[in-house]
Amino acid sequence: VTLERVLTAAVMIPIVVVAVLWGPDWVVGALVALVALLAVSEFLRLAELAGHRGYARWTLLCALGLVFAQWQAIRVERHALPGGVLLLHDAPRITLEGVLAAFVIGIALAGALGRRAIREILPGAAASAAALLLVAFPFSYLLRLYGAPDGPRWVLFVLVVIWAGDTGAYLVGRSIGRLPMAPQLSPKKTWEGAAGNMAASLVAGAVFLRWLDAPLVSLLVGAALVNVAGQFGDLLESAYKRAAGVKDSGVLLPGHGGMLDRIDSLIFAAPVAWWYVAWLVRANFRSRGL
Amino acid sequence: VTLERVLTAAVMIPIVVVAVLWGPDWVVGALVALVALLAVSEFLRLAELAGHRGYARWTLLCALGLVFAQWQAIRVERHALPGGVLLLHDAPRITLEGVLAAFVIGIALAGALGRRAIREILPGAAASAAALLLVAFPFSYLLRLYGAPDGPRWVLFVLVVIWAGDTGAYLVGRSIGRLPMAPQLSPKKTWEGAAGNMAASLVAGAVFLRWLDAPLVSLLVGAALVNVAGQFGDLLESAYKRAAGVKDSGVLLPGHGGMLDRIDSLIFAAPVAWWYVAWLVRANFRSRGL
Repeated sequence: VTLERVLTAAVMIPIVVVAVLWGPDWVVGALVALVALLAVSEFLRLAELAGHRGYARWTLLCALGLVFAQWQAIRVERHALPGGVLLLHDAPRITLEGVLAAFVIGIALAGALGRRAIREILPGAAASAAALLLVAFPFSYLLRLYGAPDGPRWVLFVLVVIWAGDTGAYLVGRSIGRLPMAPQLSPKKTWEGAAGNMAASLVAGAVFLRWLDAPLVSLLVGAALVNVAGQFGDLLESAYKRAAGVKDSGVLLPGHGGMLDRIDSLIFAAPVAWWYVAWLVRANFRSRGL
Repeated sequence: VTLERVLTAAVMIPIVVVAVLWGPDWVVGALVALVALLAVSEFLRLAELAGHRGYARWTLLCALGLVFAQWQAIRVERHALPGGVLLLHDAPRITLEGVLAAFVIGIALAGALGRRAIREILPGAAASAAALLLVAFPFSYLLRLYGAPDGPRWVLFVLVVIWAGDTGAYLVGRSIGRLPMAPQLSPKKTWEGAAGNMAASLVAGAVFLRWLDAPLVSLLVGAALVNVAGQFGDLLESAYKRAAGVKDSGVLLPGHGGMLDRIDSLIFAAPVAWWYVAWLVRANFRSRGL
């Protein structure tokens, strides 16, 4: 851990925490959009280094569209009535489904009308589809989670669980790490580090008992799910970088590499956390007999 | 046009027409699912020939999930009430969004836990994402269109408009075709053929004045949109095949090549047609002052 890395974290973390807990909604929406765009463009750069040049502008525009669709989705009022009736107020005009369908049509146009060599069209379309579906789409659920009941605190829960896990993995792995976990993917990762990662996440999750209206076991299960999804995201990003033959996804954040390096754990943790919280809310609703 | 090709069409077309117009819903759902699975597996084979081996089983399972989500989507009753309130009855439990999110999580697991060489994970994830998002997802809208008001006839409209266009392109291109359209992508396509394609589609669309409750201009606009989307789909599939270095996507249908060869025009025409019909239905609703 370089001093540079700690300083960057010391500046960024308070900004993120303040924005999530007390910022107006649109600031959080704008942050999610900005981070998604940076991550998608770094992913497209990695894919290009691996030989698959995506349709960058259209993919970025659609990534922005996905974030906007999530923004609209969190503004819908939903009321479940008896007999399988669902009442929606202010149902969104721009939906995730609509953005994805527009993306597909746009890729078809770009592929058929563009001036690329024919053999590059399939890899280009595939890289674009991967950037949108495997990076922007899952990450955008962070905004959806933010709009759930107690959403800002749940978003903070996800962030703290992941940050604590990263720190735990580093401290434990460095001091007693011996058994390599995925030597091909990430030579420095050890099983001891992964266990430290999980343990620190569980502790961090338990601390939220003070701020979230959920029983301890729900918080521990949530922290475990977020942690596992986070570790998978981290491993997968290592694979992307190896395909591209680079060490960092970018040089945006001093000491941390690129944005994709910094949020790789969040990409898959975000949809998992949203699903889990939505399920908790429904289960809670039922147990109160409503 | 070989005799084999004509015979295959003579067998398949009546089956499809009868199933769409008079078959029970589930037969159409099963046909769409079957065709989607065949098309996705052919696309994955093309991508593999181009050097990108996707996660085939998981992608096929999720393609089936998308078709099932569309099947559920067409069973929802929607009522728009004043004041931006939307009432849904039997809202689906398995949604397009849910299937796509599950796909993403599954690809993360497969990528991180699988035993592939690291450099193959990014291309494999990208090929899978492309197969699901650029083939199965748009094609599945054919089932959604089937569930729209007058859906079976609109599905037939799309099929006939495309079949007529193919025939028109062939006859005109062969007799007077001179100006090559996209020599790199598809050496035999000419601008004269493309014009014949469009003209035949417009005539076919106009014929549906007899079976669809829509003014002539709406049918002509619909036929033109379907035709353009179809021609783009056709061109794009040529690009996929060129990347893979093959002439046909498969050998499933005698004289027609593979399933992807046969439905390439439908892939993008399906979502375009569904959007257009959904828009017509809403516009019609408003113009009656409801």
